[in-house]
Amino acid sequence: MHDALERYLTAERERMLAELMDFLRIESVSAQASHQQDMERAAAFVAEDLRRTGLQRVEVMRGAGHPVVWAEHLPHPGAPTVLIYGHYDVQPPDPLELWQSPPFQPDVRNDRIYARGVSDDKGPLFIALKALEALRATAGELPVNVRLLIEGEEEVGSLHLAQFVRAERERLRADLVLSADGAMWRPSEPSLTLAAKGLCGLEVHVETANQDLHSGRHGGGVPNALHVLAELIAGLHGPDGRVLVGGFYDRVQELTAEERAEIGALAFDEDAYRDSVGMRQLWGEEGYSTLERMWCRPTLEVNGMGGGYQGQGGKTVVPREAMAKLTCRLVPDQEPEEILALVAAEIERRCPPFAKVTVQREGGIGRWYRMPADHPVLAVAAEVLEEVTGKKPVRVRMGGTEPCAELFQTELGIPTLFYSFSTSDEQYHAPNEFFRLSRFDEGLRAWALLLSRLA
Amino acid sequence: MHDALERYLTAERERMLAELMDFLRIESVSAQASHQQDMERAAAFVAEDLRRTGLQRVEVMRGAGHPVVWAEHLPHPGAPTVLIYGHYDVQPPDPLELWQSPPFQPDVRNDRIYARGVSDDKGPLFIALKALEALRATAGELPVNVRLLIEGEEEVGSLHLAQFVRAERERLRADLVLSADGAMWRPSEPSLTLAAKGLCGLEVHVETANQDLHSGRHGGGVPNALHVLAELIAGLHGPDGRVLVGGFYDRVQELTAEERAEIGALAFDEDAYRDSVGMRQLWGEEGYSTLERMWCRPTLEVNGMGGGYQGQGGKTVVPREAMAKLTCRLVPDQEPEEILALVAAEIERRCPPFAKVTVQREGGIGRWYRMPADHPVLAVAAEVLEEVTGKKPVRVRMGGTEPCAELFQTELGIPTLFYSFSTSDEQYHAPNEFFRLSRFDEGLRAWALLLSRLA
Repeated sequence: MHDALERYLTAERERMLAELMDFLRIESVSAQASHQQDMERAAAFVAEDLRRTGLQRVEVMRGAGHPVVWAEHLPHPGAPTVLIYGHYDVQPPDPLELWQSPPFQPDVRNDRIYARGVSDDKGPLFIALKALEALRATAGELPVNVRLLIEGEEEVGSLHLAQFVRAERERLRADLVLSADGAMWRPSEPSLTLAAKGLCGLEVHVETANQDLHSGRHGGGVPNALHVLAELIAGLHGPDGRVLVGGFYDRVQELTAEERAEIGALAFDEDAYRDSVGMRQLWGEEGYSTLERMWCRPTLEVNGMGGGYQGQGGKTVVPREAMAKLTCRLVPDQEPEEILALVAAEIERRCPPFAKVTVQREGGIGRWYRMPADHPVLAVAAEVLEEVTGKKPVRVRMGGTEPCAELFQTELGIPTLFYSFSTSDEQYHAPNEFFRLSRFDEGLRAWALLLSRLA
Repeated sequence: MHDALERYLTAERERMLAELMDFLRIESVSAQASHQQDMERAAAFVAEDLRRTGLQRVEVMRGAGHPVVWAEHLPHPGAPTVLIYGHYDVQPPDPLELWQSPPFQPDVRNDRIYARGVSDDKGPLFIALKALEALRATAGELPVNVRLLIEGEEEVGSLHLAQFVRAERERLRADLVLSADGAMWRPSEPSLTLAAKGLCGLEVHVETANQDLHSGRHGGGVPNALHVLAELIAGLHGPDGRVLVGGFYDRVQELTAEERAEIGALAFDEDAYRDSVGMRQLWGEEGYSTLERMWCRPTLEVNGMGGGYQGQGGKTVVPREAMAKLTCRLVPDQEPEEILALVAAEIERRCPPFAKVTVQREGGIGRWYRMPADHPVLAVAAEVLEEVTGKKPVRVRMGGTEPCAELFQTELGIPTLFYSFSTSDEQYHAPNEFFRLSRFDEGLRAWALLLSRLA
């Protein structure tokens, strides 16, 4: 089969890329109501592709929100079933003026395809679709049972996914999720992602008076909302970078010696990283390396803060109110709801009597996700990746949040293997998003091989 | 003369008020270029009024910026000369929708005139003009020599006043400035202002990276500009309300026992004040009363601060930069330039190595002003105010800045008596600015009497 597959993928490459270009031309921006028709077109594109491949059942399912493309193909009763996850929606392309080629007119330069959504997630999703096509075309049948769940709301927070999964457990029954979403760590080698952090956020609002006050007439005699907020925010971290919220670390699982060794063995050039984002110096919690901090330690970050006069020039005002937006990234076994309550309580406790503080939840919450480090699929995937790329994949974690993986674990009881062939430097969510053609080729082979081995 | 003056002021009251209404209808907004013609009209209005009163020389002087109305009338060689200061320009009227009557269509309600500029400074300035008219009309001549300097740029920071004063020292030679600008402390009694604070400002800019970073991908491993700024700002005050800037208090003159007694004897209802601005609790430097803090102690206030995402909802970003705007109010013998340098040095010293901080001067500077507490004009004015209002005036200070007074002291060598009849609660610089008719009547009598006594 290997030879046949290789011949097929080589022979059909240009046609497959041409199809991908058609997919990329569909402006499936889920955040903008004006693209409603494009969302339908993108869902139909995916469904049509699956039908051409000959899957037993393919449906565009409509409920609340953008349609879900669902499919199943179960040729081997009793054999394992893989649930393939991906999304056909993309981020808005703004700011348009920063794109070197129009976001919905895919352009190939330097062996990269440039287009909105090509890396997140149309390119990686399309790899999964074409791997299925190639397997059926060359072997006559898929080597394993598959189900597919391709959503259109990932870029708007998968608004209705949990509802869908809970309602359609039967249609999603499987042994493992293979996610075409997520991204590899870096372009220089393949990677397998073992864990993702959880997320929760809140907004802090401080009020000291019912009006902004003239700093000459009142200054010195009245509290200043910005002084209060600065004090509250500054108090949330110690000089050692630890989060100073009572109970914050209580449930945190310390890194094991094995985990530290695994992360420590990775080649990671801290100076190059620092320079790449124009930092003067890296900084974080004492006692941990940069990768440990980013991947395995919980954080509390102020994402935005403001109050008083921020325009040009000056205004001699004592601001009456100020606000800050905070998010925490969580690790096992922290619970988002509990952390929200702890942070809010800490801030309320520290607020001086001359100010009023309000702490409100902001944004969705997501639990952390972790794949058992000894799950057999990791070994199989590592083998496949090495075979296809010639490089041993590294095992990494991510600081970001993957609520879908946590959802599948909780609702379907199955782990998710992130098996996307995009790379985290590909400007997704930003102008000039791109996808490497080399990864397209590797991905097709890696998906086909993994599905074969999972049989 | 007293009887004649009283009869004149009573007989001419309605005509005088009608003239004031005409003055108020001129939209002399100095900040807006579209009002250039109105500025000329307002200057001409003042000049014409002085000519009708019969002053010897009246000129509208044009140089850089809006015109200055200058006049002199020196009927008594060898006798004292008073320099009358005021301004004919007004603040922009925005936000218009909050006005109960149109800002440039003066409206009388509840014995108050509502109009933009009526309290700051057209009403008080017009009192000075009409006092001159009444004195000449009833006594045949002014009791004292006068010069007038009526500028059109007070609301934009008296941009060209220093230059004018330095160039025209001869035309401004006098023994004392009587300022129609400034405001009385409160409506319940007359007051004499002994001192005003100095002012200097700066903008602090913190930078930690060359781009905003994803809080999932990078959070924990990189510094956050808002954390750094919050820490810097929080560190500028101690828990006792003192400013924690090295050298900040070195030149501060401590309050004398007499000053504390004088201020302590004032009836000031702290609870009512607190409630009037919707504060939960007053707060300030330990060891000082609220009035002492506002009038006699130096302050450092953050007027505005911001960074990261401040819009609706959330954005999981680690902000790369943040800024704060600070102003200090200064007391004798603090020097603005020195304080700017001290604050900047303190902030730079405290900035951690992983961030870059830039501190830049923002806005103009002004030195504090203080009138010698035993200057004879204070006693005379107190006598006049008591005679006219039936109440002993209180001696107060102000937390605001009066750069003109300091300018006249430095460049002309003469003190300034603030002798405005507006009150600090009259919504100047805000919608529904008003001026009390009772103060208009008192002011006319008080100006005429004081000028007579100064002879």
